[in-house]
Amino acid sequence: MRRPYKIFLLARRTANGIQNHMNIEKIKIGILGATGIVGQRLVQLLEHHPWFEIGFLAASEKSAGKTYQEACNWKLASPMPALFREMIVEKIGEPPRRQEKLVFSSLDASIATEVEDAFARAGHAVISNSSAYRMHEDVPLLIPEINADHMALLETQKKNRNGFIITNPNCSATALALALAPLDQQFGIEAVFVTTAQAVSGAGYPGIASLDVLGNVLPFIPNEEEKIERETKKIFGKISDGLVVSHPMKLSAQSTRVPVIDAHTEMVSVKLKRTARPEEVRELFLRYRCKYSGHDLPSAPAKPVIVRDEADRPQPRLDAEAARGMATVVGRIRKCPVFDVKFVLVGHNTIRGAAGAAILNAELLKAEGYLA
Amino acid sequence: MRRPYKIFLLARRTANGIQNHMNIEKIKIGILGATGIVGQRLVQLLEHHPWFEIGFLAASEKSAGKTYQEACNWKLASPMPALFREMIVEKIGEPPRRQEKLVFSSLDASIATEVEDAFARAGHAVISNSSAYRMHEDVPLLIPEINADHMALLETQKKNRNGFIITNPNCSATALALALAPLDQQFGIEAVFVTTAQAVSGAGYPGIASLDVLGNVLPFIPNEEEKIERETKKIFGKISDGLVVSHPMKLSAQSTRVPVIDAHTEMVSVKLKRTARPEEVRELFLRYRCKYSGHDLPSAPAKPVIVRDEADRPQPRLDAEAARGMATVVGRIRKCPVFDVKFVLVGHNTIRGAAGAAILNAELLKAEGYLA
Amino acid sequence: MRRPYKIFLLARRTANGIQNHMNIEKIKIGILGATGIVGQRLVQLLEHHPWFEIGFLAASEKSAGKTYQEACNWKLASPMPALFREMIVEKIGEPPRRQEKLVFSSLDASIATEVEDAFARAGHAVISNSSAYRMHEDVPLLIPEINADHMALLETQKKNRNGFIITNPNCSATALALALAPLDQQFGIEAVFVTTAQAVSGAGYPGIASLDVLGNVLPFIPNEEEKIERETKKIFGKISDGLVVSHPMKLSAQSTRVPVIDAHTEMVSVKLKRTARPEEVRELFLRYRCKYSGHDLPSAPAKPVIVRDEADRPQPRLDAEAARGMATVVGRIRKCPVFDVKFVLVGHNTIRGAAGAAILNAELLKAEGYLA
Amino acid sequence: MRRPYKIFLLARRTANGIQNHMNIEKIKIGILGATGIVGQRLVQLLEHHPWFEIGFLAASEKSAGKTYQEACNWKLASPMPALFREMIVEKIGEPPRRQEKLVFSSLDASIATEVEDAFARAGHAVISNSSAYRMHEDVPLLIPEINADHMALLETQKKNRNGFIITNPNCSATALALALAPLDQQFGIEAVFVTTAQAVSGAGYPGIASLDVLGNVLPFIPNEEEKIERETKKIFGKISDGLVVSHPMKLSAQSTRVPVIDAHTEMVSVKLKRTARPEEVRELFLRYRCKYSGHDLPSAPAKPVIVRDEADRPQPRLDAEAARGMATVVGRIRKCPVFDVKFVLVGHNTIRGAAGAAILNAELLKAEGYLA
Repeated sequence: MRRPYKIFLLARRTANGIQNHMNIEKIKIGILGATGIVGQRLVQLLEHHPWFEIGFLAASEKSAGKTYQEACNWKLASPMPALFREMIVEKIGEPPRRQEKLVFSSLDASIATEVEDAFARAGHAVISNSSAYRMHEDVPLLIPEINADHMALLETQKKNRNGFIITNPNCSATALALALAPLDQQFGIEAVFVTTAQAVSGAGYPGIASLDVLGNVLPFIPNEEEKIERETKKIFGKISDGLVVSHPMKLSAQSTRVPVIDAHTEMVSVKLKRTARPEEVRELFLRYRCKYSGHDLPSAPAKPVIVRDEADRPQPRLDAEAARGMATVVGRIRKCPVFDVKFVLVGHNTIRGAAGAAILNAELLKAEGYLA
Repeated sequence: MRRPYKIFLLARRTANGIQNHMNIEKIKIGILGATGIVGQRLVQLLEHHPWFEIGFLAASEKSAGKTYQEACNWKLASPMPALFREMIVEKIGEPPRRQEKLVFSSLDASIATEVEDAFARAGHAVISNSSAYRMHEDVPLLIPEINADHMALLETQKKNRNGFIITNPNCSATALALALAPLDQQFGIEAVFVTTAQAVSGAGYPGIASLDVLGNVLPFIPNEEEKIERETKKIFGKISDGLVVSHPMKLSAQSTRVPVIDAHTEMVSVKLKRTARPEEVRELFLRYRCKYSGHDLPSAPAKPVIVRDEADRPQPRLDAEAARGMATVVGRIRKCPVFDVKFVLVGHNTIRGAAGAAILNAELLKAEGYLA
Repeated sequence: MRRPYKIFLLARRTANGIQNHMNIEKIKIGILGATGIVGQRLVQLLEHHPWFEIGFLAASEKSAGKTYQEACNWKLASPMPALFREMIVEKIGEPPRRQEKLVFSSLDASIATEVEDAFARAGHAVISNSSAYRMHEDVPLLIPEINADHMALLETQKKNRNGFIITNPNCSATALALALAPLDQQFGIEAVFVTTAQAVSGAGYPGIASLDVLGNVLPFIPNEEEKIERETKKIFGKISDGLVVSHPMKLSAQSTRVPVIDAHTEMVSVKLKRTARPEEVRELFLRYRCKYSGHDLPSAPAKPVIVRDEADRPQPRLDAEAARGMATVVGRIRKCPVFDVKFVLVGHNTIRGAAGAAILNAELLKAEGYLA
Repeated sequence: MRRPYKIFLLARRTANGIQNHMNIEKIKIGILGATGIVGQRLVQLLEHHPWFEIGFLAASEKSAGKTYQEACNWKLASPMPALFREMIVEKIGEPPRRQEKLVFSSLDASIATEVEDAFARAGHAVISNSSAYRMHEDVPLLIPEINADHMALLETQKKNRNGFIITNPNCSATALALALAPLDQQFGIEAVFVTTAQAVSGAGYPGIASLDVLGNVLPFIPNEEEKIERETKKIFGKISDGLVVSHPMKLSAQSTRVPVIDAHTEMVSVKLKRTARPEEVRELFLRYRCKYSGHDLPSAPAKPVIVRDEADRPQPRLDAEAARGMATVVGRIRKCPVFDVKFVLVGHNTIRGAAGAAILNAELLKAEGYLA
């Protein structure tokens, strides 16, 4: 986490030299909803991105016309990148005749429906973290490790729009799906119980009132359980006749909010089609790798699933930052007295569960030639 | 929670008058492990008890000979009762020739095995919160609302000891069992998934380090899941040939620790033998009452299960104190996509889950004539 | 904190009998701003009040017409009193022709200015927790232990209004003033440094965002330092020609917000006119009593200042409830290398710092005949 | 905080190339107390250090002989550096005939007295974070920005030892001193009031019990106030006849513990010899730089004091990581009604307040030729 010393800064200057050389054609992108918690993560993660650079920041009317620094109540522990402090925030809903082909959206579902569609119709590639289009039958709910083939939906979608919309799933569903992926591939998944203990950053800002969550557990997150249940099935769905048919697994989710800043913790029990011992599941997680369709994607984790063998791991405070927040950290893999196996996982909700997922999707799209 | 004004104090004086009159033969009791978190709750709850009064406080060697105030690092939000501040703490392990027939034990399992047995052999009624004897085949794991008939085990036990040991279950198991009780009675329980978010007071003092739990979730509590799984089955067991045969339900528990002071939250999914709709389950909870074998027990809650209909309840901060901490508060009763029904419950871990449970058990024993 | 057992309920019934008998003329009161955090405390504390009973609950337009239960997002750890759950909330701003002479106000300063004045002009006694009129020269900033003589301002005030407004001070200032009172009386106060660590309940609901305060310290509370500085001086002011002349002490306050639900902690250093040793100050605090002008006020604490001698007290979690939240708890009284003495205090911000202070003021007014 | 992408890793490889080239003579160092919280920070910060590399890790008997991974309960949010996981921890107290001339000590004061002296007598340069020798008259209490001239004490010290001991101050004192430095230089300091809200990591592990600090403020930290008061005066002391004469300022400290993981917050009021307006003080902070005796020290912050102008900054959660934890972040600079100026500061307690301070001191020693 610590950047080591001045010599490192020198190194980075060298690196930037290389980088600039390598990326003479860096792709300009825009961010819709740049001042929210996920928008802030996008800005943070894109600051030094080798392929993309921020062309515009857009937000609601009350932010428009201000500098990013004025408009944005920055809540991340690392300082706001100096590069964007003075950038003027634009108003969302401006006629989408931007030069930036690629647009990241972290809008509220309420306004995303209209705005994302408008941008897509105007020819943009919209990489959305919103829930608005996740369950639409021609919109990929994309996790590169699991369902890169769902990009085939874009052919269906292009009949309706000049551009297209790609979505990444709900934060809890994403962390869960990464752990379920090797299990489904190897043994087949029949049923899943998952209980989540979710971080407050997932509710945005101001989000959860301190009087509600200090020294407390909130047993309800609106629509969260439904999202986890239906999105996970779509993520593992099969393409048939140009549309996704959801996976037939049974899935029951219970979601809670806990006084944690970042990273969701999930307690999972899985019933497999072909039973497996905990040791086999652990081995499977340890061996699990992804080739990302042969591409070297800058944001891809070396291992999508990281195994911790200590009795008391994973923990959100200690494991959120593993693999720069892009992996699911799994531990306590043990026999379940009701299903086959149970385990605990931790995933970073605003990185792999939101901003980082969107960027990884954009990288895959670029590598596959969809942004040309 | 607030005691209303001086007039109330007057009232209590009147009440104490009545009380004293009614209890000319108050039963003297002892507390083994009086300085720990559960011991403190026992002292707090017994301060004004109408049937029992504290005869001695015992603790480990390093506390012995000190006043309770000196020996005890009081951690409850209400002040230490003035009555006991100057009482001299005795050493546990003194030859158990005490006049107090009834002894509450909140000892660590490590020393409870020997001490509780010694007291029982010396003719005492030991009401234990320790896990040492909970699974012994002749020791009742007593919840008056559920298995008062398990007191029959005392006949078996008396063959081995002059006195006897009665245990109350693990805190998480107790809160769970109260909610499962009407379901098992009405529909039969086949399988249960439960995930807990447990308060730090359950780990005693100093217990959980702040560096471990601040802004964090700990995914592991030693032995807790095993206790929940096996104790719940014994609680619902049937007496056969003078011993308990555990209930055949399947049960899978996942336990976590969260930054909450008091009260455990549990996310539960239940598979019933005869299926039921959420509305039926809610109705059943609402109607559920207990007659406590016809006795009017001072610590018994009016309703063992309290239903909250708000979308975001129960919560440990707001519901721990319901029914003076003696009930399980249930909410979010809804259909489970995998089992039949799922819901959330909150129970006070050091009251109904420990000290209050022990006192209620003692009250039942007294009412049933076991302390004569 | 625990109400002991059913026998207690019997006692309370007896008490209510007595109480009802004693209070055949209970005074009906109204609450303006009944759904906020302080309004909730007023409802909680007035539930069993021997002199007052709630006649109406009023709140903003969006609450009007609903039951209190529907309108109010109850945030206290003890349940909403059953008595008021179904009471219909009225709209503030209705023409103040209520029969209730006595009205408690916990309105935001923004609307309090107009509403409180209107009620006072219509002949009501307005007991206000708002900051709107605290510094007005003819409005008492009343703490019965310190400045009961400031009620003389009511004569001045009555020239302008049919009724009158009485205010209680800012929560931090109140807790501080109670501790400064015996010091000023005995030694004279020349200067004070105070740093506060304030609870989130002081900011109302939703108030402080969890993303702001979890695992954090907020170094700024709008207007708080100014209120502490100027209100404390007025509290200790002298009446001269029918107006208050503030105390000439120098006072510097620094206020912070910390992740605590209830009770403010204050670190205080005091320069006295006549120097004193820490032991003298401790003795003075121990001996400090108040006669409340000879009245037996139901909400008055037996000791306005409680001394804790343990090295690590007072603490908000353990000392907030002392004296039912009506006293200032002081500890760590020691020599200050710059001024004379330094110490730490804890005071309950929504009880003695708000709702309880207002009720105590109302009790004094009643006892003095101002409500006749 | 985020390391940007694979391209960055490439860059670092390049950097390491440069680095290795530049540091063919990297200095091997040892760490005494390597498994504690400060020891962990030392390991983390030294992982990529351009001048130093870890030669041995030493800890108490119970850790000796284990790998660092086995011996150390790692509590930092970034993972344990892979490089040291398998390094065998040595036992402290082994005869100090190590080849490593430079030894960092983060031992408890209780054992530091003997061990540090033994290492120094054996010819080592001991850079200590312990309080054992901080107030010894021939031991520098070194902050390079403030009192590099105190290294002259080493001449005095060498009369007694072959090597020497250099100490860095208490964490709260360090953060405070960095802010006071320009004030003392420019205006002269006469008196200071400081109240701290300190993070739990300062108490080590297990340290503060969660039951003590969750939702609470602890008003007492053993010896902390005395350390702040006397160490600050020594830091600003003048060398006279080969010894330090402490600064004559008056200083009163009140220390509290709050539920924060890292970084202390301090509320400061300062009386200057020559009065100054808040704007002048802000300007002074903004202009404040250090030349570090002309050396380019790898761990030195570009600005020892960082000014935040937002009303609600600094905050430990958002400002701890500023300047890689090596600066004091100051805000809310305003007039003090009692002294001249008051402000709030945040400093990282285990980086600039401990491990980072020790490393910076070592760098200055090396640059000045003391490690040759």
